[in-house]
Amino acid sequence: MTRRGEFELIADVFGPLADDPSALNLGDDGAIVPTREGMDLVVTTDAMVEGRHFATDFPPDLLAQKLLRSNSSDLAAMGADPSAYTLTVALPTPLPEDWIEEFAKGLGRDQARYGLTLIGGDTVAATGDHDKWFSVTMFGHVKTGAALRRNGARAGDIVYVSGTIGDAMIGFEIGQGQHSALQPESSKFLKNRLYLTSPRVKLGQALHGLATAVIDVSDGLVADLSHICSQSGVGAEVSAARVPLSGPGGEAIGLDPTIADRRLVWGEDYELIFCTDPSAGEEIDWLTKRLGTGATAIGTITETPGVRVLDPSGETISFKSAGFEHF
Amino acid sequence: MTRRGEFELIADVFGPLADDPSALNLGDDGAIVPTREGMDLVVTTDAMVEGRHFATDFPPDLLAQKLLRSNSSDLAAMGADPSAYTLTVALPTPLPEDWIEEFAKGLGRDQARYGLTLIGGDTVAATGDHDKWFSVTMFGHVKTGAALRRNGARAGDIVYVSGTIGDAMIGFEIGQGQHSALQPESSKFLKNRLYLTSPRVKLGQALHGLATAVIDVSDGLVADLSHICSQSGVGAEVSAARVPLSGPGGEAIGLDPTIADRRLVWGEDYELIFCTDPSAGEEIDWLTKRLGTGATAIGTITETPGVRVLDPSGETISFKSAGFEHF
Repeated sequence: MTRRGEFELIADVFGPLADDPSALNLGDDGAIVPTREGMDLVVTTDAMVEGRHFATDFPPDLLAQKLLRSNSSDLAAMGADPSAYTLTVALPTPLPEDWIEEFAKGLGRDQARYGLTLIGGDTVAATGDHDKWFSVTMFGHVKTGAALRRNGARAGDIVYVSGTIGDAMIGFEIGQGQHSALQPESSKFLKNRLYLTSPRVKLGQALHGLATAVIDVSDGLVADLSHICSQSGVGAEVSAARVPLSGPGGEAIGLDPTIADRRLVWGEDYELIFCTDPSAGEEIDWLTKRLGTGATAIGTITETPGVRVLDPSGETISFKSAGFEHF
Repeated sequence: MTRRGEFELIADVFGPLADDPSALNLGDDGAIVPTREGMDLVVTTDAMVEGRHFATDFPPDLLAQKLLRSNSSDLAAMGADPSAYTLTVALPTPLPEDWIEEFAKGLGRDQARYGLTLIGGDTVAATGDHDKWFSVTMFGHVKTGAALRRNGARAGDIVYVSGTIGDAMIGFEIGQGQHSALQPESSKFLKNRLYLTSPRVKLGQALHGLATAVIDVSDGLVADLSHICSQSGVGAEVSAARVPLSGPGGEAIGLDPTIADRRLVWGEDYELIFCTDPSAGEEIDWLTKRLGTGATAIGTITETPGVRVLDPSGETISFKSAGFEHF
């Protein structure tokens, strides 16, 4: 059996993911980004490094989907509609062929699901023995001037979070051998929430004109809310008990109460934190029910800077770290 | 002395490179890409990995400039005008502060020179002990539908290359301790050509309507010309002796004749290879003189596929490798 050349492998595997690979895409030095009249073009970029952002045994198809979804989640936080992306991959030599094919399958699956197309990229050899890293740059569209921002929160605004917080962390810890007393179906649910999240794209788009500040929860609820506060020049007070939980997440906390606080600083939930004027409460309830994302009021924006998380007795909880640190 | 926090360092150092960091740029989940009416938006992405694309002692400011220039060169090959970029950096911990500051200085220098602005990015920790890597995604504009392509070369077209070929390779080899008999000023010139090249942005833009296919020389003249040939469904015949040389490059070949062929498969010249109808000869001469880039006819496009490089006696030269291999 002849081993396929490495250039050919890359072209064979990633070429079909581009709408027009022979035309103006992977074959050229650059790619044309689709623009739309009356729309701003938003770009986001997110890198994942083996051993740092994902474990070596992370299923490659799900990793590809997670990479696209974490970028889609950033676009969601800007209120933009994802449409195209470029991909830079660093892979070890010899190329892990099966791994790459699985990875490409995952890309294809989410391209179909989210209406995305691959428009260009670059491949390099990783220097380490088994390091892989990926960088996706994703493009989305939003009505001109309507991009959601982090910097508009005002004292008195209500702080909401969509969905539930903590499942990805518990799923990760299950992979580390913890929480073995959980029901098998709960365990499976939580592991899947580490692998695959649902970027809140439709919610982001629906928040135009309603939210004063938006961010997605990738580095941890406390860290991400701090970004809103520092960009807006305000602070926030959050009630820990109000931060929403999934059913299986609740089961896990019943078995290990330390989860309750830890989940606030872990991240990878890919939910949206958003702030609104208190008068918007009914509209937010109606909207997030209709979209099926849910949204829970977890606190308020304050003039005092910093994020304070209160326990049920009103005491401030102190965290060792506010969230995932890039360094 | 208090060590600055690592988040703060990144914000302090890279923030001033963005036109509007507090507004809609580095502070948000994504960035707004400037679009222009009547123009296509072109994107290119290029990654550089320590130990693979640059040595550990590569001066950080020049590395930053090289990264911007290699991307500008890709845009030049599409006939586009560079305008903005996003930057992903992976750095070891603890952060090499002085190194990063020098790197940012280089970015600033080329931003001013090429009219670029930083619009977003991501920073991650590298997993290795001393691995650094960088990925730049750069945006440029070209009149709608006018982007230069690789796929239009036709049998009978003349193959041109701008500037001179081989200086970067010789500069690299000087760094490895070779070519010590060169005049000091020649040696310095060649090393500088490894560090800093001049992306042929104005030439690319001037080739609209003239060139049938264009590519930049990043992986080696033979490999890059092969890309044009395979995308266009043609071949090419090149005369090795016609491939242009700089003065110091000629001096080096006088001392080490093996350079003459090796330079055709080394790369990092960041010149443009372009094909035109033979009738365009005078216009190309006039144009490239006016722009100061020069352009030399090195061969012709053939119906027979593949790239053949002929020595002065008309024999085909065989190369161990066609150029820099990504894997």
